[in-house]
Amino acid sequence: MTPAQTGRVDLVGAGPGDPDLLTVKASRVLRAADCVLHDDLVSAEIVALVGPQAIIVNVGKRCGRKGITQVEINRVMILFAKAGVNVVRLKSGDPLIFGRLNEEVDALEAAGVPYEVVPGITAGFAAAATLGVSLTDRRTSSRILILSGHRAAAGEDSRDADAWLEAGRADTTLMIYMPGRDLTAVRDKLRGAGVSVATPCVVISSVSTPAQRVTRATLAELSRVAGVEAPAILLVGRSLERANCSLVDKISAGAAGAWIDPAEETAIEFAGEQFQNQIDRRA
Amino acid sequence: MTPAQTGRVDLVGAGPGDPDLLTVKASRVLRAADCVLHDDLVSAEIVALVGPQAIIVNVGKRCGRKGITQVEINRVMILFAKAGVNVVRLKSGDPLIFGRLNEEVDALEAAGVPYEVVPGITAGFAAAATLGVSLTDRRTSSRILILSGHRAAAGEDSRDADAWLEAGRADTTLMIYMPGRDLTAVRDKLRGAGVSVATPCVVISSVSTPAQRVTRATLAELSRVAGVEAPAILLVGRSLERANCSLVDKISAGAAGAWIDPAEETAIEFAGEQFQNQIDRRA
Repeated sequence: MTPAQTGRVDLVGAGPGDPDLLTVKASRVLRAADCVLHDDLVSAEIVALVGPQAIIVNVGKRCGRKGITQVEINRVMILFAKAGVNVVRLKSGDPLIFGRLNEEVDALEAAGVPYEVVPGITAGFAAAATLGVSLTDRRTSSRILILSGHRAAAGEDSRDADAWLEAGRADTTLMIYMPGRDLTAVRDKLRGAGVSVATPCVVISSVSTPAQRVTRATLAELSRVAGVEAPAILLVGRSLERANCSLVDKISAGAAGAWIDPAEETAIEFAGEQFQNQIDRRA
Repeated sequence: MTPAQTGRVDLVGAGPGDPDLLTVKASRVLRAADCVLHDDLVSAEIVALVGPQAIIVNVGKRCGRKGITQVEINRVMILFAKAGVNVVRLKSGDPLIFGRLNEEVDALEAAGVPYEVVPGITAGFAAAATLGVSLTDRRTSSRILILSGHRAAAGEDSRDADAWLEAGRADTTLMIYMPGRDLTAVRDKLRGAGVSVATPCVVISSVSTPAQRVTRATLAELSRVAGVEAPAILLVGRSLERANCSLVDKISAGAAGAWIDPAEETAIEFAGEQFQNQIDRRA
């Protein structure tokens, strides 16, 4: 009823971490915001883009501030917007995948606050770009199945167990979010679903950031990949057979990625030399 | 062997069409390119961002230039890069999904040309952002299955028929690329896979552009959605029940989207009035 004074809420995807992978729109909206409420996983480099006029609040669950609930986040967004403030709700990756955005949209709808969703590059696709590997291929993969490993790692859940049943198709690329620090639970789910133990897998943590780490393994070897740091993505499928190109070699040598297959040692050495050459050239 | 003179190839995702949905990196790379080879579906607004110094070539299949084959595209990229030119190969959406990027990566690898993949917002996620609908939800959808409708529309293919078999799970959001102009073939595939006829569907063509058109229907009604213009995305699943929020009403009224369910007429009228009010306010 007072449209001239009402602010708005932009629900914005921050992408995987590299500020260069923000959309042009997200970058502009961030710089112009009066208030930014961000998740804990949003990178410091991206938060640094916010203008000096803005109030910045980390509303993430892992920031040690107990008591910031979803209801409180909703309340803050609505109160600020109604007071004429332009709020950015910043979520890592794309806000519409495993981001619990519906609860926030429901609250904004109910309160009559104008909002818009600005998509972001989701970590799974950023991981594929890092590897230079197409997730669909006429010869090996006609489908992509996106799952969350969260509950697999947390324990059994009948609905979740069921969700993995059809993951075993050879022509599917699996993109598994939140695979867990220990990949044994996810490996067991995949083996139970009939995925071949020889299927190539790639784990990428902190995609597109300086902390990025790429690890390749077969499904059989997956439980030997230890201490996976969140946020991580696990890609599984025949399309990942191609993840042995020069991009991966460069990345893995650079980021000291763990390499599981001993047959790859020569390649690592070669990639390491190439990486060293690059450093020498810059010096 | 002559790194100082060699150019490079950036394989860049142009996103769904709105230049604002390019990544910051894609935008920068485009402006700096010496040569841009783009697909036909890349929007004119995005091609217009290319710097005046650049050679721009439409290498799309639908541009009427017969004889530009994949092999020729590969050859041009490699020749240009070897001559010291920085080439951008620009593909609509994200290049790693239904983009046939592997063939180009193989050619660049074989020729020893340095390359990088810059991800783009893929049309399916941009569509979800337009609707303000989360594709995963703790209550309705724990998985996203990405498929191509291309072969469903073209006719039977045993491997393809098989790919649809498991699409019928109630907790899966289906994201179907290239659903075809007539959605009957895709509807039959989905019904054959056991998807309930009452399942909500949304068809979005030309996502994020002024030509965007949003149509809602149940699966049973899908064959009545006529003349779907490419590029289009079909979203199917219980998560789309939520696609009745203010964002959709605004979009559909604005773009004269077809509405299949007669029960929605009041909502359309209301949305139409709102849209008219907005126009009046601007005038």
